[in-house]
Amino acid sequence: MEKDRLVIGVDYGTDSCRALVVNAETGEELAMEVAWYPRWKAGLYCDPHKNQYRQHPLDYIEGMETAIRMALDKCPADAAERVVGLAFDTTGSTPVLLDREGVPLALRPEFAGNPNAMFVLWKDHTAICEAEEINMLAGKWKTDYTSYSGGIYSSEWVWSKMLHVLRVDESVRRAAYSWTEHCDWMPALLTGTTKPEQMLRSRCAAGHKAMWNAAWGGLPPAEFLHTLDPLLQLFEGHLFTDTYTSDTVAGTLTLEWAQRLGLSGGVVVGVGELDCHMGAVGAGIVPGAFVRVMGTSTCDVMVASYEEMGDRLIGGICGQVDGSVIPGLIGLEAGQSAFGDIYAWYKKLLLRPVENYLSKTTLLDDSQRERFLTGLSDTILDDLAEEAGKLPPEEGVLLAVDWLNGRRTPVANQAVRGSLYGLTLATTASMFYRALVEATAFGSKAIVDCFLQQGLSIDSVIAIGGISQKSPFVMQLLADVLGMPIKIARVRQACAMGAAMFAAVAANIHGTAEEAQKVMGKGFLSEYIPDMQKHAVYMRSYEKYRTLGQFTETNLQ
Amino acid sequence: MEKDRLVIGVDYGTDSCRALVVNAETGEELAMEVAWYPRWKAGLYCDPHKNQYRQHPLDYIEGMETAIRMALDKCPADAAERVVGLAFDTTGSTPVLLDREGVPLALRPEFAGNPNAMFVLWKDHTAICEAEEINMLAGKWKTDYTSYSGGIYSSEWVWSKMLHVLRVDESVRRAAYSWTEHCDWMPALLTGTTKPEQMLRSRCAAGHKAMWNAAWGGLPPAEFLHTLDPLLQLFEGHLFTDTYTSDTVAGTLTLEWAQRLGLSGGVVVGVGELDCHMGAVGAGIVPGAFVRVMGTSTCDVMVASYEEMGDRLIGGICGQVDGSVIPGLIGLEAGQSAFGDIYAWYKKLLLRPVENYLSKTTLLDDSQRERFLTGLSDTILDDLAEEAGKLPPEEGVLLAVDWLNGRRTPVANQAVRGSLYGLTLATTASMFYRALVEATAFGSKAIVDCFLQQGLSIDSVIAIGGISQKSPFVMQLLADVLGMPIKIARVRQACAMGAAMFAAVAANIHGTAEEAQKVMGKGFLSEYIPDMQKHAVYMRSYEKYRTLGQFTETNLQ
Repeated sequence: MEKDRLVIGVDYGTDSCRALVVNAETGEELAMEVAWYPRWKAGLYCDPHKNQYRQHPLDYIEGMETAIRMALDKCPADAAERVVGLAFDTTGSTPVLLDREGVPLALRPEFAGNPNAMFVLWKDHTAICEAEEINMLAGKWKTDYTSYSGGIYSSEWVWSKMLHVLRVDESVRRAAYSWTEHCDWMPALLTGTTKPEQMLRSRCAAGHKAMWNAAWGGLPPAEFLHTLDPLLQLFEGHLFTDTYTSDTVAGTLTLEWAQRLGLSGGVVVGVGELDCHMGAVGAGIVPGAFVRVMGTSTCDVMVASYEEMGDRLIGGICGQVDGSVIPGLIGLEAGQSAFGDIYAWYKKLLLRPVENYLSKTTLLDDSQRERFLTGLSDTILDDLAEEAGKLPPEEGVLLAVDWLNGRRTPVANQAVRGSLYGLTLATTASMFYRALVEATAFGSKAIVDCFLQQGLSIDSVIAIGGISQKSPFVMQLLADVLGMPIKIARVRQACAMGAAMFAAVAANIHGTAEEAQKVMGKGFLSEYIPDMQKHAVYMRSYEKYRTLGQFTETNLQ
Repeated sequence: MEKDRLVIGVDYGTDSCRALVVNAETGEELAMEVAWYPRWKAGLYCDPHKNQYRQHPLDYIEGMETAIRMALDKCPADAAERVVGLAFDTTGSTPVLLDREGVPLALRPEFAGNPNAMFVLWKDHTAICEAEEINMLAGKWKTDYTSYSGGIYSSEWVWSKMLHVLRVDESVRRAAYSWTEHCDWMPALLTGTTKPEQMLRSRCAAGHKAMWNAAWGGLPPAEFLHTLDPLLQLFEGHLFTDTYTSDTVAGTLTLEWAQRLGLSGGVVVGVGELDCHMGAVGAGIVPGAFVRVMGTSTCDVMVASYEEMGDRLIGGICGQVDGSVIPGLIGLEAGQSAFGDIYAWYKKLLLRPVENYLSKTTLLDDSQRERFLTGLSDTILDDLAEEAGKLPPEEGVLLAVDWLNGRRTPVANQAVRGSLYGLTLATTASMFYRALVEATAFGSKAIVDCFLQQGLSIDSVIAIGGISQKSPFVMQLLADVLGMPIKIARVRQACAMGAAMFAAVAANIHGTAEEAQKVMGKGFLSEYIPDMQKHAVYMRSYEKYRTLGQFTETNLQ
């Protein structure tokens, strides 16, 4: 009896990448290993004050090699030769400038330390001005190229970022020939197809982040880009017209890469995709499901049939792209710019004065000091949640708006800020925490409403990501606010599993992503059932949340 | 050569009373001693959840005896016989029900433990409904009896409180004959004039808190009070028509009290007054000066000549009363319901999770735990102020509204709440603290504007009270926001000194309060000079503070 074939899904997150080895014929997970990016971890090339976040391509290469090798080491001895497919998902828009050979500029010795020659990470906000210019121009152009991107182009997306680095750095300008998204470069690198003319581009990244759409025959035309800035002429003819869904084969491993990874030469590599989209597939997305990847921020994904969508343009979201999640369905993306980050912010706010005091007091020695801080840091939010969980929801008693990192959806606006109303001398730290949790749930409700009000239907909510598995207080409150049950996906590494599923499709083990989901999917761990009495109270607070938010956006910016 | 004559000022605060022995002919302070109220300190008769705060008359009697005896013990041996005058100031409105003999009901054995038979402390808020009824009735009555009280009657004032205790407690209702303010009962007690028909009533307390005004011949007429509630008929003929300024002699010490206090029988006792008004005199108030007693809340006092006032009615403040501060001038009162209390609230918010953790961790033993908390509590706000002081003022970057305990002035509203706008993931604990300090300063600016916009002129600001001497960060920021220099009074016990000045006038050592101020006043310790560049920035933030406050008051309550 022949042994089951294996696939590897590689998921690149913000701080680390992980490789998941999966039995493509059963879905069994054989091993998962994580590797951290060493340069990033050391804080290199970043400047948080300027919101500049760059990643070196060597971090990606070394991380992948380490994670795949370590994962294979944990598998039975014959695992490596049983691997038939490999696929990637990455953060995005995380683009880099390429030279004529398709080499990221930072891999050339003269640019080895230049942040403008590196990948510009999704959360880098150095290109705010460029995004504004794109929106201004798109608004008055005969075709609105942002119309499939929710109507607003973001500073987090590729055109803003590439224009920004070209503008500020003459040295990279002189060497640049094309650009690539991280999710496109990985498969190209491993299959020896990095030349810009050869590289297969992901429908997902191009459609959501680069204003690529079949309706206007590809990327925005040269006339638009050159009007935006003549600098962009240097890319002319060096980019792409076609894009590919993730069931497409990008190529097979080069001999060199097969050796470096300890795999056989025939391994098929699939076209890459953005992490949340792969995650949605790994978590079991189907039409009608609202899938939330819940971590520091949220990425919310839906798929809809052509029939359901018709020629509807959904406003206020991060894009609708044919095949960006599952081939043959329209993929829709939305999200909150800060979710878990808001709780982390509050924790830091509370801890900072204690750290300061600890650094001065002689009551504890260095080792006690560290144990004290770690202990406090590990328990403070859970303790607040325990207290907060005992409070009944009360209409607008303490009301927060969650825009501490701007607002991604509905209707992107980086300039809005968080607010709080209802402070009294009786307000406690746990009431404050609860208000922040409520605010993030209200932000979620606003996204759900944005979809519903534009005629899409949502019949289930599926959650993945750290918050969904670690914070029952947050998840129950979210279910109460949405007034909908929330299913927690059992799969722990949904993005890597989604990549593994697509690897299995590319390697022709399964015919479609849906078939791969049926065989390899893990189902659900638990479900949060909403308390509809609390929901009714929350809906009155939600109206106040909208009122307060709208007022601050209009009057105080 | 005859020795200089001495006077004693006794100041009753919320938690303690203090006796100050002063040389009336030089202003030299011979001794000051404090006594805490034992029953109050034990938390008796209060219920913070209901905002019920009551004080037993024995706390006042024992406190006074202890403080005066201790202070005299610290003076030269001949001091007691050199004392010629004594005067009191107290918190207010702090009234109590009296029997026919003028005995506070709680001093009768059957009421010894009944909170409704005790003094109802200024900050007791059990009478919110009664205040609302008074405002409703006053609004439709032919004469608006609140017109000299800023146009709104408060739940903190005598009529609300006395009506409330009569309504909720039949037993005190059957025994009640009259009522008195704390500041009137003390001189009456010591001079044997407690019978309601004999007792001299303070112009200050009656005018600011009881709707007494010469314009309508005294208290509101029986018709008004009985329409409010027929229960009030029981006071008819047992109250008063005339009131007295604090230069008036209430009487001389009874033999019994002279013995109990170790003083001679001829000691003159002056008519009492509310604490902040006496404090303003002690601090050197003159027409044009805006005097702030700055502690947990603020009490703001001004005096204006008849010429300046004309027949102007100042709206939105806590009253304008002929002679309530200095005889011959109109006294005006305003204030913020929370000032230092807001900083204390923030400190508690930050400390509570740490206390919680300390109660569980085994890293520290009980004694270390207590030292840790004390150390943190003692330094946390100063450390935050140090960080916050380095931040430049930035227009509306983080903006707070200070109504965490409602708003006393301008335009009283107990239902408004605090708010905060401009939160980002970069907001720190020190930025938060700074926003709170700015908010309390904006609240002060709103009061200053309320006076200025109604035609009064302010040419200096004088500050007394704990915050003024302990918080240079707060005081400099306040000067910057007001755009006015702030002088810090040198006198440490301004209220007791004001009482001593009036004792000296009553005892005929000085002809007027102004003369007493000239001889006994202490001048100023320091002055905060505003940075007018920062002021300009703050004025733009202040506009946003008003916009945000107005919005929340109108739309979110």
